[in-house]
This record gives sequence, structure tokens and C-alpha cells, in this order.
Amino acid sequence: MSELCDFGLIGLAVMGENLALNVESRGYKVAVYNRTTSVMEEFIAGRAKGKAFVGCKELKDLVDACAKPRKIMIMVKAGPAVDAVIESLKPHLDPGDIIIDGGNTYYADTERRTKEVEAAGFLYSGTGVSGGEEGALLGPSLMPGGSPDSWPALKPIFQAIAAKVGPNDDIPCCEWVGPRGAGHYVKMVHNGIEYGDMQLICEAYSMMKECLGLTNDELYDVFAEWNTGELDSYLIEITRDIFSVKDEATGKYMVDLVLDTAGAKGTGKWMSQLALDLGVPSTLVTEAVYARGLSARKDERVQASKTLKGPAPKYSGDKKEFIESIRHALYASKIVSYAQGFVQLQAAAAEHDWPLNYGDCAMLWRGGCIIRAVFLDRIKEAFDANPKLENLLLAPYFAKAVDESQSAWRHVVSQAALLGVPVPAFATALAYYDGYRRERLPANLLQSQRDYFGAHTYERTDKPRGEFFHTEWIDLRKDPK
Amino acid sequence: MSELCDFGLIGLAVMGENLALNVESRGYKVAVYNRTTSVMEEFIAGRAKGKAFVGCKELKDLVDACAKPRKIMIMVKAGPAVDAVIESLKPHLDPGDIIIDGGNTYYADTERRTKEVEAAGFLYSGTGVSGGEEGALLGPSLMPGGSPDSWPALKPIFQAIAAKVGPNDDIPCCEWVGPRGAGHYVKMVHNGIEYGDMQLICEAYSMMKECLGLTNDELYDVFAEWNTGELDSYLIEITRDIFSVKDEATGKYMVDLVLDTAGAKGTGKWMSQLALDLGVPSTLVTEAVYARGLSARKDERVQASKTLKGPAPKYSGDKKEFIESIRHALYASKIVSYAQGFVQLQAAAAEHDWPLNYGDCAMLWRGGCIIRAVFLDRIKEAFDANPKLENLLLAPYFAKAVDESQSAWRHVVSQAALLGVPVPAFATALAYYDGYRRERLPANLLQSQRDYFGAHTYERTDKPRGEFFHTEWIDLRKDPK
Repeated sequence: MSELCDFGLIGLAVMGENLALNVESRGYKVAVYNRTTSVMEEFIAGRAKGKAFVGCKELKDLVDACAKPRKIMIMVKAGPAVDAVIESLKPHLDPGDIIIDGGNTYYADTERRTKEVEAAGFLYSGTGVSGGEEGALLGPSLMPGGSPDSWPALKPIFQAIAAKVGPNDDIPCCEWVGPRGAGHYVKMVHNGIEYGDMQLICEAYSMMKECLGLTNDELYDVFAEWNTGELDSYLIEITRDIFSVKDEATGKYMVDLVLDTAGAKGTGKWMSQLALDLGVPSTLVTEAVYARGLSARKDERVQASKTLKGPAPKYSGDKKEFIESIRHALYASKIVSYAQGFVQLQAAAAEHDWPLNYGDCAMLWRGGCIIRAVFLDRIKEAFDANPKLENLLLAPYFAKAVDESQSAWRHVVSQAALLGVPVPAFATALAYYDGYRRERLPANLLQSQRDYFGAHTYERTDKPRGEFFHTEWIDLRKDPK
Repeated sequence: MSELCDFGLIGLAVMGENLALNVESRGYKVAVYNRTTSVMEEFIAGRAKGKAFVGCKELKDLVDACAKPRKIMIMVKAGPAVDAVIESLKPHLDPGDIIIDGGNTYYADTERRTKEVEAAGFLYSGTGVSGGEEGALLGPSLMPGGSPDSWPALKPIFQAIAAKVGPNDDIPCCEWVGPRGAGHYVKMVHNGIEYGDMQLICEAYSMMKECLGLTNDELYDVFAEWNTGELDSYLIEITRDIFSVKDEATGKYMVDLVLDTAGAKGTGKWMSQLALDLGVPSTLVTEAVYARGLSARKDERVQASKTLKGPAPKYSGDKKEFIESIRHALYASKIVSYAQGFVQLQAAAAEHDWPLNYGDCAMLWRGGCIIRAVFLDRIKEAFDANPKLENLLLAPYFAKAVDESQSAWRHVVSQAALLGVPVPAFATALAYYDGYRRERLPANLLQSQRDYFGAHTYERTDKPRGEFFHTEWIDLRKDPK
């Protein structure tokens, strides 16, 4: 072997292969390893042919093939497999070598592994990778966290392979996120927001199809138009495309042949469960996760549809106006979704002592990943203007945007209720907005109830916070007739 | 000591004291212990004076004071304290003795402890206890699970102290639930349903107060009337009472002086997190938990209320009719909430291999506990008629009830959206109903998106379930203009 490699990669499934090809394409020499050796050999003989790759049959060979400090990225299934690879690597590494986990790992595992790997004298980076297969190959969004000392070594390679945005396409969608599990947490919130965006688009689709009877061709045109404005984003773009695709065998529109049972890989669930632990209301991702769950109960729904009736979903007003109202509902709900996501990030950062830069987080998602959108520039601007912004809804740009959309949004949620079309995400977003902007919520009654039956005590409006009171409600109540 | 005790109780906080007094009042002799001895001594010299109690300064004394097989109930803070007490008890017990945990324990801890205690040769019962202080003293709802062999020994005492219902007040709200953690799981679902009921009542209150301007006196009358019909329940009754209570110092209505920041002790959160793990959409409890979380961010809301505007919440239609519509919204949403709770129980029972009787569960809650209501008889009847009922909404009684309420329910949710009053639980219940009764949801678009960007594959409407397909959407899409 004449020259050592700049980068090592373990795990040649499609994401790993594509990332390796991306790194090599930027002028780096890459060592690759796969547990099943034939996969590595096929890669070397195939897509890697004629390129600066070194195929390794043993992990030790991979380590020996890399220049120090080594940068070895693991792209295997999240979970115990990652621990197994780390343990197998350790005996061969030298102090200061860097292990990178680019999988879809639960952040708490990355918290733990960073400490364990650092204790063994090495560096660790849990790096969120978004953008799917195509992003991995051509430019993903990268969210690196872990040992801070790993960043200077990783930065040139990661920023070279990342997606680029900005007027000159030179701002990489890759910046240091924070210590330990911060990178994977930010990736999880990205995915949760993706759940929300997708559910919102489905609700818009559902209303246009059911209440207005739009055809797939008409839906194509609507999403094409939406993609030229505030909603301009990858997900709106591919939604537009989807409405144009026909099944080659039957000639029918593909979208109508796809079964309405959504799968999920768990990051939306994680985000919801962690929001519940933190006590922050991330209602939108949770409703999106639940909506997928309900969709999966297909047989039950088919049965239920025979018993449970509702109104005819036809909208009788102006079609064009209603489409525009639905666009407003989608946009305003989307703002709420991102606001909730950043509130959760702030709460997690406080809990785990991660010094996150929220504007940078928005920019990481600006390109390469599934939720990439023009919209994220506005979020970056909001946090640049006020790094301590408590909620995106309070930023002047977004406060104004929601205010301009709210009457249309209310109209859509109201009509959905009357027409019997489920819009759980539109509705929960609106309830959040209306709850958040309220000085007084009905929780005074709830606290009274808790004090009545469980002596849980309450605070008072006419006393300082932190003083707790109890009333003997039964003794003071009016005798019921 | 002349005669051995029938029952032992560890932990003399208010719930423990009251349970001990309840057991003694049914003719049993009770040994009591508290870690801080003075608490035990005060109890013996005070509320226990002249009654059949034996105060014990050491755990060993408590064990020695009880007849075999011993029945020793732990009423300490859920968590590590329970493990500590179990470990301290073990050396003193004889084979076949029964340890009972009556705390608000996470079901998985009870799963584990049952196995550990059984492995040590003893029996274990994780028993859900509901009803607060008053219930503990006069008749709680008891949800015993754990070692099946513990039940025959516990049954006479537990059914004696439990609340009684039925025409002759002789049906105890206590029946064997299931093995290991089943009792605590059922208790958790009870609490989650309680979260939902309370949130729904708060939303009804909020709409009547804000949209109709009802005074506390008028609200008293409304809840008094509601308590005579389908909504007849403990929570509606105490809500009625609350509107009559005035602060002794200021003469003002107490409910208006209570701060609108809800606390929570975590069972609603557990239920939500477990629903997410099970993939069942328990949207109502989750929205209720999130609503408490949003209420707790009081300072932020006060700030936000100055920036974020909305419509004036005044309802312009007929007041009486709207109150009746709100009653329908509350009732229909409540049915959805219970339907979701039982679906979660069924999914948990399948996962943990608990042979639950759902009709019995409903009857356990019929008296003694916070969610006690006439309504639960209907649930019992529904499961008696069809023990394999997949969803309460499909039972003829409930299908008809929701159908009769739905136009009013839709009107209320629709008006709330237009008037800017947050009703997250009413709205999510309606979205669930409208989603559940739909043969086709828009998840076909969502699956298309997932396949487009991530090659996640999809099933087809024209092929059998379990076959998965992938489309090269990019190759087939129409070229965008």
C-alpha cells in the first residue's frame, strides 16, 4: 500500500456506499470494510472501480490503512451493532483516533458512547446524516456532535461532502452541533419535523381531494404553484412530482395504487416521548405519529367505515379561495411545528448542557435533507436577531405570517370539522397557537379539581408564584339541591 | 401480643393511614410500621386509638405480628423506596407470604418485582389504588395484579374495603386484574382517562366562559344539570361544587383565584409514551398532558398574549343551544377517550400476555375512583355483549351515542377554531373519530413520499397485503415546467 487513506468507512449498505463515494469524489482516499466480505468486494469491483478506495477484509486492515489521527465512520444498523463495532475497533486504534457513528442512533446511546470512547483514549462523533441515498452521494445535511476535539479533524472532509446552499452555493450544510449526543438529538428533531411536514401535506391533499374533488393533475398544479412561494421546499416539490407518476403496468396514477398504511422507523416516536419527558408540548409531531398509527389499522378502519357515519365532505364555497385557505393553513401549521421543534431543542439543550446555536441548526437543514426549504433562512434570521428567542411564533416575521394566515387557517379547521375530514395536525397546531397566545387557560379549573379530590394544592393569582394553597372544597361547597 | 394481625401496612402517609383505618374498620387487626417511628406513634396515639392496631418499630416486629400467610402492604413513594422495603422485608418472611405494593408504580417495575419476589419464594401483588384520601378511607377502587396465588388470600380483605356499587351497593370495585404488572397498568390507564376527562371539562368550561360569558353561578347550574344525565360522574359533580366555593378571605369565587398552571405526577405521560411504543393512537390523553404542559408555561403565555392576536371569542348564536352542543361535544369526546384507553389496554395485554377482562376493568372504575361514572356500566355491557370488541366506538350503544352527538360536536369544534378558543382534546377526539371511520386516509401520499426520498417501499391497493413495491419516482415524474 503506497499511501495511507484519509477516511475509513464500515458498513457498505446503500447509505455507507454512497457516503464513501461522496468522500472519495472530493479528493480523499477511502478505506472500506463490510462484515460480509463479498459486499465489499462487489463494491470495489463495481461502483468503486478506478477510484481511490482500499478494500479491507478485516477491521485491523482498515485501521492500518488509515492515516492518523484516523477518521473511521460506522454506517451500520443503529443499536447493539454499533457497540459491537466500537469494541472490535478499540484494540487496533491509537490515542486521538476518531470513531464516527453516522447512523440513526438514539441520542442517549451517543451520550453514553462518547463518554466510553473518550475514557478509552479516543475521540467520538455521533453525526446525524440526512438526505437519504441521494443526499449521501451528492451532498447530505450533516449534524456532527460528540468529542469537541474531533471537529477540527472532521471539518474539512464533512464540509466538503455536505450539501451547499447560499447565493454562491458555498455554505456547507454542516456545522459543529454540540457535545456528546447533541448531533443525534438535532437529527431526531429534524426527523420529527419531517413527520409533521408530511402529515400537514397529507391533510392538505385530503381536503383538496375530498372536499373539492381535485384530480391528480389539478393537485400537481397546486403543489407546483405552492412550490414557488413561501412553501418552496423539497417535500412540496416531490409531492408535486408524485401526482404526475403513473404506474407502468396499469397506466393508473401511482398515488392511487399506494396503500394508505404508513410505516415509521421510530424517530418521531422518540421525539414525542422525549417531549413528554421534558414537559414541552410538541403536539404536532405526536399527532403525526399517531396519524400514521391510525392509518396502519387499515382492516379495522375498513370495518368501521361500514358502521360509523359522518357528513358528506363536499365544500360548497369558492374552490380557488378554499385552495388558497388550505395553503395558509399548511403554512401557519408548519410555522407552529417548527416553533415546537425549536422549543424542544432548547429544553433538551438546557437539560443536557449543550450550548446549541439554533440559527446554525436551521442552516444545517437548509440543504441536503428532507425538510430543506427556503423557510429555514427566516428561522436563521430570527435566531440571529435574538439568540434567546423563546418561541419562533414571537419573532416578528413569523408572528406576522401567522397573523396574516390565521383567518384562512381557522376557516379550514372549522370546515374540516363540519365536513368530517380528519385534520389532526392542522387542528392541534391551531389549538397550540390559541393556547400559547392566552394569558389565561382553563387550567385553574383543573388545579381546583386536583386540589378537591387529591389535595394537590394550587398557586393563586393574587399571591406570588411558589406559594401553595389548599382549600377544603367539600366544607365550603354549596349544598347540592 | 395476644392475637396475630390479619394485615400489615408499611408507610403511614395519608393514603397508608387511611387504608389501614379502612381495613381495621372491616373487622381486621392491623400491624403498622413507618420508617420514622414518631409518625407511627402519633398514629397509634391518635386516629388509631382504641382500635385493633399494633404499632411496630421494626420491620421484623411487623412481620412477627402478622398471621401466615402474611399480607403486608407497602404504601411508600413509588420507585427505589419500594425495592428497599422489599429487600428489608425478605429476610423475615416465610414462603407464601404476600407483599403488596399499593403505590402509583410504573407497571414495568411491578413486572420485574413480581418475578423477583416469586423467585425468592414469596408472593407479590402490584395493586392499583384509586380514590384519593377519601377513597382510601371509605372505599377505594382496587386493581390487584401480580402473583395469581396471592388473590385468594387478598380477596376477602380487598373486596371488604373496596367501594361498592350496584343496585344493592354490594358489587365491590375490586376484582383480580391479571398477572405481574397488569394491575398497575390498568391503574395507569385509569389515570390517563382521568387526564382526558379533566381536560375535556376544562375545554367545556373555557367555551362557556369565554364564548358565552357564563358566570360561576350559571356554570354551577350547567354542571348540576349535566350531572343528572349521561355525563353523571364524580368529576362533573365536583366541578359543579367548585363553582360554588368562595374564598373566605376575599369573598371572591375560589376558582377565579386559582392560578392556571396545571401540575402533573406522570401517569398521563407514561400512558402516552407507552401508547407511542405500542403504536396505538391514544391522542386524547396525550393532548391532555401537553395542555397541562402549555398551561405551566404561564410567564411565556402572558408575554405571548401581548404579541399574538386572535378573534374576539364571542358566540353570536343561541346560548342555550350552544350549551347543549358543548355537552354533546364533551360526551362524544369522552366516548372517544375511553375507546382509546381500552384499545391501549388490549394492545398492552397482547404484548404482555395478560388475559384481561375489559368489562371487569370498567366495573373496577365504577365506584371509589376519580373517573367513576354511570357511563362505565355501558362499557361493561358492551364488553359483555362482545368480549373481543375491537373498539368501543363500534358497540351499538356508543356508535349511536356518537352519531346523535356528532353534528353538535362538529359545530363546537368548528366554532372554537373560528372564535380562537383552544380545544385540543375536543378536536383530537373528532379527528380520531373521522380518521377511524375512514376506509381511506391520505397515508397513500405519505407512503409515496417515503418511497420517493428513502426507498421505504409501499403496499398496493390492487395486491395482497405483505407484498412491498418500490417505484423510481424521479425517472417517471413529469418534467416540471
